[in-house]
Amino acid sequence: MSADDAADEAADDTSIVTGDETYTASVVGGTGFTGGELLRILSGHPDFEVVQATSRSADNMTVGRSHPNLRGLDLRFSDPDDLESVDVLFSATPHGVSMGQVDEYFEAADAVVDLSADFRLPAAELYDEWYDGHTSPEYLERAEYALPEINRENLPGADLIAGGGCNATATMLGLKPLVDAGALGPDSGEVVVDVKVGSSEGGAGGGAASSHPERSGVVRPYAPTGHRHEAEIEAYLGLDVSFTVHAVEMVRGASATCHVFPDEPVSKADLWQAYRGAYADEPFMRIVSGGGGVYRYPEPKAVAGTNYGEVGFELDPGNRRIVVFSAIDNMMKGSAGQAVHAANVALGLPETAGLEFQGLHPVGSP
Amino acid sequence: MSADDAADEAADDTSIVTGDETYTASVVGGTGFTGGELLRILSGHPDFEVVQATSRSADNMTVGRSHPNLRGLDLRFSDPDDLESVDVLFSATPHGVSMGQVDEYFEAADAVVDLSADFRLPAAELYDEWYDGHTSPEYLERAEYALPEINRENLPGADLIAGGGCNATATMLGLKPLVDAGALGPDSGEVVVDVKVGSSEGGAGGGAASSHPERSGVVRPYAPTGHRHEAEIEAYLGLDVSFTVHAVEMVRGASATCHVFPDEPVSKADLWQAYRGAYADEPFMRIVSGGGGVYRYPEPKAVAGTNYGEVGFELDPGNRRIVVFSAIDNMMKGSAGQAVHAANVALGLPETAGLEFQGLHPVGSP
Amino acid sequence: MSADDAADEAADDTSIVTGDETYTASVVGGTGFTGGELLRILSGHPDFEVVQATSRSADNMTVGRSHPNLRGLDLRFSDPDDLESVDVLFSATPHGVSMGQVDEYFEAADAVVDLSADFRLPAAELYDEWYDGHTSPEYLERAEYALPEINRENLPGADLIAGGGCNATATMLGLKPLVDAGALGPDSGEVVVDVKVGSSEGGAGGGAASSHPERSGVVRPYAPTGHRHEAEIEAYLGLDVSFTVHAVEMVRGASATCHVFPDEPVSKADLWQAYRGAYADEPFMRIVSGGGGVYRYPEPKAVAGTNYGEVGFELDPGNRRIVVFSAIDNMMKGSAGQAVHAANVALGLPETAGLEFQGLHPVGSP
Amino acid sequence: MSADDAADEAADDTSIVTGDETYTASVVGGTGFTGGELLRILSGHPDFEVVQATSRSADNMTVGRSHPNLRGLDLRFSDPDDLESVDVLFSATPHGVSMGQVDEYFEAADAVVDLSADFRLPAAELYDEWYDGHTSPEYLERAEYALPEINRENLPGADLIAGGGCNATATMLGLKPLVDAGALGPDSGEVVVDVKVGSSEGGAGGGAASSHPERSGVVRPYAPTGHRHEAEIEAYLGLDVSFTVHAVEMVRGASATCHVFPDEPVSKADLWQAYRGAYADEPFMRIVSGGGGVYRYPEPKAVAGTNYGEVGFELDPGNRRIVVFSAIDNMMKGSAGQAVHAANVALGLPETAGLEFQGLHPVGSP
Repeated sequence: MSADDAADEAADDTSIVTGDETYTASVVGGTGFTGGELLRILSGHPDFEVVQATSRSADNMTVGRSHPNLRGLDLRFSDPDDLESVDVLFSATPHGVSMGQVDEYFEAADAVVDLSADFRLPAAELYDEWYDGHTSPEYLERAEYALPEINRENLPGADLIAGGGCNATATMLGLKPLVDAGALGPDSGEVVVDVKVGSSEGGAGGGAASSHPERSGVVRPYAPTGHRHEAEIEAYLGLDVSFTVHAVEMVRGASATCHVFPDEPVSKADLWQAYRGAYADEPFMRIVSGGGGVYRYPEPKAVAGTNYGEVGFELDPGNRRIVVFSAIDNMMKGSAGQAVHAANVALGLPETAGLEFQGLHPVGSP
Repeated sequence: MSADDAADEAADDTSIVTGDETYTASVVGGTGFTGGELLRILSGHPDFEVVQATSRSADNMTVGRSHPNLRGLDLRFSDPDDLESVDVLFSATPHGVSMGQVDEYFEAADAVVDLSADFRLPAAELYDEWYDGHTSPEYLERAEYALPEINRENLPGADLIAGGGCNATATMLGLKPLVDAGALGPDSGEVVVDVKVGSSEGGAGGGAASSHPERSGVVRPYAPTGHRHEAEIEAYLGLDVSFTVHAVEMVRGASATCHVFPDEPVSKADLWQAYRGAYADEPFMRIVSGGGGVYRYPEPKAVAGTNYGEVGFELDPGNRRIVVFSAIDNMMKGSAGQAVHAANVALGLPETAGLEFQGLHPVGSP
Repeated sequence: MSADDAADEAADDTSIVTGDETYTASVVGGTGFTGGELLRILSGHPDFEVVQATSRSADNMTVGRSHPNLRGLDLRFSDPDDLESVDVLFSATPHGVSMGQVDEYFEAADAVVDLSADFRLPAAELYDEWYDGHTSPEYLERAEYALPEINRENLPGADLIAGGGCNATATMLGLKPLVDAGALGPDSGEVVVDVKVGSSEGGAGGGAASSHPERSGVVRPYAPTGHRHEAEIEAYLGLDVSFTVHAVEMVRGASATCHVFPDEPVSKADLWQAYRGAYADEPFMRIVSGGGGVYRYPEPKAVAGTNYGEVGFELDPGNRRIVVFSAIDNMMKGSAGQAVHAANVALGLPETAGLEFQGLHPVGSP
Repeated sequence: MSADDAADEAADDTSIVTGDETYTASVVGGTGFTGGELLRILSGHPDFEVVQATSRSADNMTVGRSHPNLRGLDLRFSDPDDLESVDVLFSATPHGVSMGQVDEYFEAADAVVDLSADFRLPAAELYDEWYDGHTSPEYLERAEYALPEINRENLPGADLIAGGGCNATATMLGLKPLVDAGALGPDSGEVVVDVKVGSSEGGAGGGAASSHPERSGVVRPYAPTGHRHEAEIEAYLGLDVSFTVHAVEMVRGASATCHVFPDEPVSKADLWQAYRGAYADEPFMRIVSGGGGVYRYPEPKAVAGTNYGEVGFELDPGNRRIVVFSAIDNMMKGSAGQAVHAANVALGLPETAGLEFQGLHPVGSP
């Protein structure tokens, strides 16, 4: 079945474009960080009703025990082997799990939104190159990449949505306007992407390097080269980037600084035109570039807890460089928020539904 | 005019208990931290429309320049000398300002909610003892203390609401159930309150001690004795406390640990009864006391950005001590959130309107 | 053999008071945090030569792999079952280990300095009350408590030195001058000790609560009551305290705020006299109490990395309260530094040898 | 007078190569952060005696009031208009001050070590291009750049030493081995340098952006392009770099990630050879590149408080990229430590004298 057929079928089954009903939802893998964010968002979403959150390790415990901000939620984790029938199943399991369970997911749900890397890449060969072998490659074509700024036109009616990687998301949001504007051609220099991320990227488990005494205050190169998110950037932006990721002192947030050497000299006005053209109508994108005050460029702490992405840029005339800054909350725009945003688009709901939180100021290390 | 008369008059003027209209609101002193929080809350509040935010220093600039989370808000600061007519004026000026402008406030607004210390104490003598001389003492009796958990019954119809101090709020929320339960009598020992607060308490100005290199990572006794919030605790809880405040590494948050030596031995069951009795019906109070998981007692980071207050307790049988923990976000439950909560009660709106944000997990230094 | 005999014997064996030789030393349990601090101090100590550091898990790896600051040290961990003969063996194993190995320690070394809780309490009954059963109670009387400010007179010639607990150390340094001055008598109120500590107290292992996303930015009551360090305070200061410990955002540091209600009113001059009398001649104690500038009271970050202890105080006349502040680096004055200081005293070396580091300013979260 | 003549003269005047005397030293501008570090280092340096520390604002106050770690130092700030005669004057004034006072400095001292940018660049035109007009250009040729790894051969006998910029220092330490190895030729791609720095770079003054609530937890592009330290890199390394600086959450530390695209493919073995060749004999340089454990690449927190620099590298074969990581403490190797190191070399003292501190592990946000 092609992705289009699947989308048609999904549309038939769920009558998704009404907007005046409430969709039932479940969260598989609810004790993890992105699972918790999904529960937070969906429980406050006007169009979703959370009917199940699963966890093998925390079976029968309240969700508030794992996520203290959700203590007010009257919900207990249940066994992932007993999936309830829902309209939409959100899976927030570790990489490699959902590819083995996707058939069961579709038995329980009309649509599946997966936050892992399992369905993120469009072809099995690409997956196998960057990860281990894929066990359900037949779903790869059916899956739609979640990030609406990249793939909005294919989301309506999608029944398998694959959430993007947080670092890839930050990078692509920063670079896409330049790609679309044709600034990157055969004579461009290497695109260097230097990413800084928070400790939540390591997930709820963590190891020795994630313990507070070792992880605090670092500027730590944790993926000097070969980060898997390069694969997505190549797949969806058609761009080969020189990619390096550093862990820095924050819990949530991803910031990508992209150093771009375009084919031809560009002006500040060109850049404004490219970015405004790309994002003026996007409900979650802000262009933050210069101006006065303390917050003159994108910063993760300005978007912490929200689904917003900030992008900005500066010109370095001497060496014909464009410096692009991009900041997101890795668990929101980079994961759970992106997933719900995509589900909103897929179901024909208002795009910002459930994602209205504006963020906090001031806030400490986000 | 007595407070009751004032309340009656206010009720007459504003027809406040309808609930099906939108109230216009202004924020005086909008560049400060609590001013920003008021703008964030009110702009997302279903029953308020923000029509003005004032700032002398940032006149005509967008509110997003001061508060990066509010970049999406189409609002510019205007001159505080040109107050627009509104239903409710929220004042977030430094201590000592609103007492000199309260007459003008009431010319512009039917109701005034003041977040400074100016109208927080019920009598001029008490104010003069802890602060400098009050210049508008005639308003002190008219003002109602904002904290609904302490003063809900007097808020409906109030037209001058005085927001509580953040440290006093945290302390009173922790101790009130014990006071109500009669645990503190003439034979009780001294009540020791040891408070830990974030840097936002110092406000947007700050000085040398607030600069990042000096302020980072501190456990700094900044008010060893004589903190002014003791006055509120005495006034509204009838309790003389031994009060010490420390600055610790966070931006927002206040945590009070109260060491209480009751008249008579109490049991854990007594404590549960006292706290459940006090807070079971409170929409923003959570009792967090023991149990499993990582978050077993109140923590500021679990309520950051929210209007929730957490309280918990433990018994030290050896020395007949009750240890009470209380955690709030100083800018929310301790200031702007409390103010909006009180306004909701005063106007007959749903208490949680505009204050539904559940907080984030995980989050770094809040 | 009584402790006195043991001390005599040790004195005979080691001819310890010469001061012009170099003592060989080993560190058992070298991968832990305090083991690393011991290696750092001893490798820069003019009178010690480190000949062995043991670790079962890191056998044959360089010490720099565990402790990046020691990359320049030409030393590899070796098997703890093959202890080399040394003058002094420092043991930095988890609680409960050294009591089972103390006989082997003494086969290998003339003197043993143990940093765990195993020999910290003077009597087996006290140990059994607060910990589990002691398996080598015969050594308890022989052991001398390490903290020189408490026990200097008994350290010279000691061959078994038991390092104090960090929170007990901070507390006793703060309260001892008041105890000595007789301020605490039968009519005193309860002594409330409210402690704030960094994440290194949890050791190199850590668990879920120690992972960076969960531990960052907390004000977390982790020992509301019943902390084992109370036992030391009772044993060595003769004081029953109401003791509560909070985890706060820092890695190293312990700050104790002691709320004391003395028998009789005291003056500021009395307090200065008591503290100057106690600490004027102490090489590692500083009285920091009021004055100008940013750092007016003890702060952990002002002593991070050093063996200094800071104490200060303030009077609350209204309720006859003395507030005492005490700050140390939990891994230095509260553990490894204290141990080396005690060894210096025991061996007749200059007390500050190897412990001259003055600390850093400014520094972030220590 | 040429620099060589000046050096000769200085050598004559001070008989500097003896090594068995104590040099008197003064610190001008002693309340700032680097002034405090100078005082810390020099007061523990076996070959220096600090006889004066000046401060206009803190005249007659103890140095411990500004620098709490130096409370044990018996020294008060004095008037900068009354300079005492010393062997070496260290100036830690803001940029632009020492160029106006250098004549007075030389009246008081035989040698001057300046930590500002004033004498950092070798030619007035370069200075004027990146800063404002230089008022004492005649000293520029006389000054020797402090960083021994770059300029050791010219330091012996130098009487005017100009400390390097911290970000330039981090960058040059990372790139110099590649430059020396000829890896960067006419066909190389742009060298992108992405720097992350702590808040102490802003100095003790700070402004709104440096206040704790605004500065905490940032990943903030503060110099997207045009950072003045590019001038040094061009002057001393002959390299034009694409340079961007971000503020991140730490107080002290600078980390440079250099993305290099060499002329010809290089192997890992080539890189090890280049870096070992450059730094094997350097007393303060460590190559940290891969291997096991938590700290596999350079990190600022591993060198906080020390004069060490760490460099490491990784190869990205796909795009022929070398990623170089470099980490220093901006106030030590990037300023005060570098200055003392250079003075040691100039005076013929042991290079590591006074700079032996090994740093701490674990430590929080440095």
